[in-house]
Amino acid sequence: MKKSHFQTIDGSATAPQGFLAAGVFCDIKRLGTGKGSNKGVKRDLALLVSDAPATVAGTFTTNQVCAAPVKLCIERVRRGLARAVVINSGNANACTGRQGRRDAEAMAKITAAALAGHNISAAEVLVASTGRIGVPLPMGNVKKGILRAATLLDSSRQSARQAVEAIMTSDTRPKEIAVAFQLGGRTVRLGGMCKGAGMIQPGMSASGARPALHATMLCFLTTDAAVEAGTLQAALGAAVARSFNRITVDGDMSTNDTVLLLANGRAGHPPLAARSRDLAVFQSALDHVTLELAKKIVLDGEGVSRFVTVRVRGARTAAGAEAAARAVANSALVKTSWCGGDPNWGRILCALGYSAAQIKEDRIDVGYSLPGERKILHSLKRGRPTAVPFRALCAITAADAFDLHIHLNLGRAEALVYAADLTEAYVDFNKGDVNDPSTLGG
Amino acid sequence: MKKSHFQTIDGSATAPQGFLAAGVFCDIKRLGTGKGSNKGVKRDLALLVSDAPATVAGTFTTNQVCAAPVKLCIERVRRGLARAVVINSGNANACTGRQGRRDAEAMAKITAAALAGHNISAAEVLVASTGRIGVPLPMGNVKKGILRAATLLDSSRQSARQAVEAIMTSDTRPKEIAVAFQLGGRTVRLGGMCKGAGMIQPGMSASGARPALHATMLCFLTTDAAVEAGTLQAALGAAVARSFNRITVDGDMSTNDTVLLLANGRAGHPPLAARSRDLAVFQSALDHVTLELAKKIVLDGEGVSRFVTVRVRGARTAAGAEAAARAVANSALVKTSWCGGDPNWGRILCALGYSAAQIKEDRIDVGYSLPGERKILHSLKRGRPTAVPFRALCAITAADAFDLHIHLNLGRAEALVYAADLTEAYVDFNKGDVNDPSTLGG
Repeated sequence: MKKSHFQTIDGSATAPQGFLAAGVFCDIKRLGTGKGSNKGVKRDLALLVSDAPATVAGTFTTNQVCAAPVKLCIERVRRGLARAVVINSGNANACTGRQGRRDAEAMAKITAAALAGHNISAAEVLVASTGRIGVPLPMGNVKKGILRAATLLDSSRQSARQAVEAIMTSDTRPKEIAVAFQLGGRTVRLGGMCKGAGMIQPGMSASGARPALHATMLCFLTTDAAVEAGTLQAALGAAVARSFNRITVDGDMSTNDTVLLLANGRAGHPPLAARSRDLAVFQSALDHVTLELAKKIVLDGEGVSRFVTVRVRGARTAAGAEAAARAVANSALVKTSWCGGDPNWGRILCALGYSAAQIKEDRIDVGYSLPGERKILHSLKRGRPTAVPFRALCAITAADAFDLHIHLNLGRAEALVYAADLTEAYVDFNKGDVNDPSTLGG
Repeated sequence: MKKSHFQTIDGSATAPQGFLAAGVFCDIKRLGTGKGSNKGVKRDLALLVSDAPATVAGTFTTNQVCAAPVKLCIERVRRGLARAVVINSGNANACTGRQGRRDAEAMAKITAAALAGHNISAAEVLVASTGRIGVPLPMGNVKKGILRAATLLDSSRQSARQAVEAIMTSDTRPKEIAVAFQLGGRTVRLGGMCKGAGMIQPGMSASGARPALHATMLCFLTTDAAVEAGTLQAALGAAVARSFNRITVDGDMSTNDTVLLLANGRAGHPPLAARSRDLAVFQSALDHVTLELAKKIVLDGEGVSRFVTVRVRGARTAAGAEAAARAVANSALVKTSWCGGDPNWGRILCALGYSAAQIKEDRIDVGYSLPGERKILHSLKRGRPTAVPFRALCAITAADAFDLHIHLNLGRAEALVYAADLTEAYVDFNKGDVNDPSTLGG
């Protein structure tokens, strides 16, 4: 599919018809840790509501330690219908036992009650949390936040932005996007917001069961397309496999990773049929939106100064290609060399060598290119250094973003991972300050 | 076995009878990279020689990208006899193709010729290298260094120390040890030296085949005990499994990891019989020497400020225990929390959850203790936070070293890993300076 099937428009989760949002501050983090200050009183609770019934799809962390709101969402998304999402930052509601589950359910109930005019049942409310692990939610404040947010709900650009702000943790920038396209003669919109920054190597599936690998990353997507729940789930699963499940900041898979997509059909076209051309158009737009949001997460990862696209080709198996790409993308030595703008292919070979991929040293090609450029400069061909000068390689790896091309020349399997460098700023941020527990991330 | 079977003595590889050493500077790194300076003219070539025939055992990296000297050693150690080891730092002779193999063989030949008075064949000379990957050895300088070292060989404390200095790369301290014990009425000595610092998560086997996991770490051990080669290999394999294969600094397994042990029988006791009490005494001394040297590598790891012993108990399988311990020990978020002296058990649970180990959140215990103390303070019991105050936990994790106790309460399998924190200093060191390639590590 070509990009011409859709166009980027202003806005995010409230760009599609019939979606309302709000973001408020209710002091979840400070109370959650019992100490410290919430600098600048950043918003920490968001509501996202469809004014009409909507189908829903979701993908969730495959971490065996899985937060209470994730467990709740996995169960509710299976039913295929949802009307609202309530999201808090500052507290992950993870490792909080039965109380955590009760709190997640209470968040849904309070939300349904607060949205009385919308005729929403508690079972139609989904819940997401991000922040420190192992601390009970301050439910008094959460309730105040939900009640306040419910009074502020609207479809304005400003409310959507306030909702984005409310889901941010260590993010330095809001991450949002919206696109418009035509289906059955109607204009359809798809929008969304996400947050990331640290504990980022998602490996999500629909059930939380582990078919795949490993910030909390949260993403909330909305569309006014009409898509039956099963079709919506298949489309989201395919999009996430090519976007959020392809990123890594620090190789740590969170307990809370969640992507939700609500489709309320307000655009008025006939529901999308399986294998139809219209569905392909929808998939293409969804792929674009999820990939752009996923890349924003890497670019705004904790301390990240360089974005590296790692492409592995020529592996004997798909699992081998994946293992090779992840080994390189998560190697401390490779990531610190990227921080220094050093092409260091020796460390790349070393990581390939200890990966679970089958490799042959004398077959490997390693090359570098600037994003969007076709010209690849190879440092290594068939395991032997090329005559390309070190300076020429450094001219590429000094850029804010570059592509790393690894060819194993053993088979036809490929893998692609969007990765980042490892910087002093990442360490400084994550070592925190034990004298100020509010600095200690989840 | 109790420590009382052996005593620590001064010295290292020349403490046992009949071993000679030398360490010289021959400018391998500067020429190897074509630029930069070798600050302080650190020695970079070492010789270690037995004046009598010796049996030999070795363990080597299981990285599929394996340096030329490692390939040569794997073949030669199989024969069970060796007389000398030549070691260079500043250049790993890895990813150097056929020329690399020829250079490694030439190092052995030059050494044998230079040791003419000792009647040593080239096939009895082993070779080890550490330093930058992918750069051909400057053989002219290497030859000059070997010839000079051969003239300086002796069994003095000073020469042994100069040999240790010569194998160091990013190490800040020499690492050496020697012990003495009694076998068959004779005093037997066992000594050795090692280097580490970065690219440290060894996973060695005798053949380079991969039974196990993943700086270059090099270790050269000598003893005047009389041990048949097969017995010596079994003893070394067992010792390495409990020491060097239990450490991780940054999770990167090098292309050059090598441990060699030469036994020349000069102590004069009868050869150690399989399953004998004397062999148990020898094993106990060897276990102590390898574990002490392995711990020194972690303590002197690049940028390391805190030494953490990760103990996992109660796993369902041995592989699960191993996976759980490695996931925690290599998690960027766990390691940065240790840097800050933060007990952050939430990140520990998160890492356990995405590990390949089977876990149940509501079974997990997490505790902390100071090394050598029996009292464990638990932050988590059966998945629930305890009443132990955060400050009390921090009092332990603020120490230079502490033990982390994880109990999965699912089975009886255990694993132990010696790990380190991740600091800004590690990143600063490894990002190097592309304008001074001599700062770019292998």
